[in-house]
Amino acid sequence: MNSNTTRSVRLLALNLLLAAGLALSLVPAAVTESADPLPSWKEGAAKRAVTGFVARVTREGGEDFVPPAERIATFDQEGTLGSGQPVDFQLAFALDRVRALAPRHPEWRTRQPFKAALDNDLETLAAMGEEGFAQLILATHAGMTTDELGKTVSDWLATAREPRSRRPYTELVYQPMLELLAFLRANGFKIYVVSEGTVEFMRVFAERAYGIPPEQVVGAAFVTRFQRAADGKARLVCQPEIEFVGDGPGKPETLHKLLGRRPILAFGGPDGDRQMLEWTAAGGGPRFLGLVHPTGAGRPDEALDEAAARGWVVVDMKRSWNVIYPPGR
Amino acid sequence: MNSNTTRSVRLLALNLLLAAGLALSLVPAAVTESADPLPSWKEGAAKRAVTGFVARVTREGGEDFVPPAERIATFDQEGTLGSGQPVDFQLAFALDRVRALAPRHPEWRTRQPFKAALDNDLETLAAMGEEGFAQLILATHAGMTTDELGKTVSDWLATAREPRSRRPYTELVYQPMLELLAFLRANGFKIYVVSEGTVEFMRVFAERAYGIPPEQVVGAAFVTRFQRAADGKARLVCQPEIEFVGDGPGKPETLHKLLGRRPILAFGGPDGDRQMLEWTAAGGGPRFLGLVHPTGAGRPDEALDEAAARGWVVVDMKRSWNVIYPPGR
Repeated sequence: MNSNTTRSVRLLALNLLLAAGLALSLVPAAVTESADPLPSWKEGAAKRAVTGFVARVTREGGEDFVPPAERIATFDQEGTLGSGQPVDFQLAFALDRVRALAPRHPEWRTRQPFKAALDNDLETLAAMGEEGFAQLILATHAGMTTDELGKTVSDWLATAREPRSRRPYTELVYQPMLELLAFLRANGFKIYVVSEGTVEFMRVFAERAYGIPPEQVVGAAFVTRFQRAADGKARLVCQPEIEFVGDGPGKPETLHKLLGRRPILAFGGPDGDRQMLEWTAAGGGPRFLGLVHPTGAGRPDEALDEAAARGWVVVDMKRSWNVIYPPGR
Repeated sequence: MNSNTTRSVRLLALNLLLAAGLALSLVPAAVTESADPLPSWKEGAAKRAVTGFVARVTREGGEDFVPPAERIATFDQEGTLGSGQPVDFQLAFALDRVRALAPRHPEWRTRQPFKAALDNDLETLAAMGEEGFAQLILATHAGMTTDELGKTVSDWLATAREPRSRRPYTELVYQPMLELLAFLRANGFKIYVVSEGTVEFMRVFAERAYGIPPEQVVGAAFVTRFQRAADGKARLVCQPEIEFVGDGPGKPETLHKLLGRRPILAFGGPDGDRQMLEWTAAGGGPRFLGLVHPTGAGRPDEALDEAAARGWVVVDMKRSWNVIYPPGR
């Protein structure tokens, strides 16, 4: 296990399973025929700030007008578009893969972290931390071609259900943020999602959950290697090595490498997105910086004080939104 | 100089200055009012193949229809969209930067490769090969912020002229390929350019020469580091280290990392694009693979035989095209 791999899963936490995250509050969104593009957002400062920003940058001839090609928005995934997912979802996927592959690996019955995974012993897994999770991911993903891995993720997402809510994982994203993504897209924005999960998982997830195409998803990536199969066909095989995308440090560098320019709107979550927001803010012209804040999560108020001092818009999940999750289908 | 850096400039050759490349043949393109989207392409197999492919994948209800989101095309830069540029152009830029920065570096008067650059001693530079070129690039680029580097490239491209033709470098790209890019774009394709030059140079170049946005340009990238300036503003600073994009090996892996899926059309040049074309060809559904071939360049015919055997379309610059460069302005 090299240090890159270890770093890459630094924040792939076990919070779906163990942490005191938000409970799933499955309040159905009001279905209205309103022309309001953000019906799940309460009238208030956060909603006014984001709709006002979009109005300003799309007003042709206005002093804050931004041409469509430069309307780039980046969203953190974990804690911003959904509560800690899909990294947690990727853990659920990895656990299911361990179970599926176990018959071919009798040694897993006695070897950690596989034994804990097979016994559904989440406490032991949590105690092993990132290293244990990294081993699960690598053992179940590496060696597959990129096509095989994509299909396996796709098949899993189509059938797997989150245990408590019994809902597909792709439905467990914040309804108000789904509305915001649609609103931005309708206003010519190109949206990028940044995740600490592996892109191989996230790309399938983001296309289904958000309609965001694979090339607009940024995440930890397996190192791949070009091979010719027995039939001569070219393919890329996932190696047991992951290239890191940092949570916090690393996000601006990665986004610059990909985009070659700054976004004009960036949305972060409760952890680790400060650098991405600072870097976005440092560009010339109009900028929108948003921070999703879990109400009453016992987090220090300094983060909020700093956000206010910088002019970042704090979206308090309880005070700014009417609902959290989309209505069940 | 680490090995990544050395590899990154493996193909940053000195061919503008020394190799027996194509002479600039500045035949003005015929200006016609034709509805033909590719007026600089001679009627023949290559033109029929590419227009036929575009017709098939855009015909709604047809069996080869490809939804717009999946119409991704990748073009090699060097030798495909232009004759070995803009890597050569990047050398010209680096030489101009060495001259501009020389007053601050008296030691360069006696130290190679800087002495050779200042003396315009191209033979000595060529003899130093990639290592010498890498040193010029790193000494003139590293330490700048990404914003400063972008502005310096932009200013240079606005005023610099290619010595023989006295034309702006951004005009020295193949006219028939400009038409092909426009034709594909009009048919809903999203076009990516892959270069062995650094993206910091190529992104400015590609936006001016082709109208391709920065996020659709792939190339060698400076490693950057997040910093806060004295005024507290966030910025990214280029480090003296370049991340390699291979010529040949490395292109499919890099494109997969960026796109998460295969293009449906790929165009390569005389060197090093075989893997990118093979990997593109291995996807399901309709595919177009094209190879730009410099007429009479004394290259082995095996490459052409193989292309024919694989069904790749060979674009012979003399036999397939009416003109090479766009008319002067």
